[in-house]
Amino acid sequence: MKKIEHIGIAVKNLEESNLLFQKLFGAPAYKQEEVTSEGVKTSFFMNGPNKIELLEATNPESPIAKFIEKKGEGIHHIAFDVEDILSEIERLKSEGFIILNDTPKKGADNKLVAFLHPKGTNGVLIELCQEIK
Amino acid sequence: MKKIEHIGIAVKNLEESNLLFQKLFGAPAYKQEEVTSEGVKTSFFMNGPNKIELLEATNPESPIAKFIEKKGEGIHHIAFDVEDILSEIERLKSEGFIILNDTPKKGADNKLVAFLHPKGTNGVLIELCQEIK
Repeated sequence: MKKIEHIGIAVKNLEESNLLFQKLFGAPAYKQEEVTSEGVKTSFFMNGPNKIELLEATNPESPIAKFIEKKGEGIHHIAFDVEDILSEIERLKSEGFIILNDTPKKGADNKLVAFLHPKGTNGVLIELCQEIK
Repeated sequence: MKKIEHIGIAVKNLEESNLLFQKLFGAPAYKQEEVTSEGVKTSFFMNGPNKIELLEATNPESPIAKFIEKKGEGIHHIAFDVEDILSEIERLKSEGFIILNDTPKKGADNKLVAFLHPKGTNGVLIELCQEIK
């Protein structure tokens, strides 16, 4: 794991939150993207070597809709940048972590992603992400 | 704001979580520190340019104890590295953010810190931190 690639934050209204985070960082989102398979629309802010991803649900079955219903708006996941997602999945499985999807899937921002079960990581939803080259 | 300085994670048992995050990162915590004023003991893991801080409450009145009671273990705050915490506090106040402590206080890991009220930041507790030189 090379660094925090991004922090994912669940929000109710992406347009309003874009303005808020633009004020926070002093610069607008550099990208907006819809990930239909996950039922989310997202925006990304740069912060030095890291990014902040805002996520709004596009349907009530979206994991983000369910998260907000249960816990309210807030930090949803941490994503770590990995060089080789397949070998990292194997390493973490051998250490006893539970991987929610053994086969990486296509995420936002040109990444292959896999998630660790938060029950095995002190309640933190951790995403591994590898840039698609 | 230069980068994510660290992510703070509230845990029930620091020793157990240290072992867990050592497995996750493949390296042990580089530091442990108690912050008596906040009622926490902490450990820090390096992850490239970023850090992960684990926090265990040392008394039932600690903000971390109250957080876990309400929400369970998980991500407690994001800390952003700032060059000049006083000017950043003024800038954010002028943008309408609510600062929980206008006067920065001494945090863990040799930092001056200030917190933004999560009601104004989509439920995210944001810490500003400046290295004490």
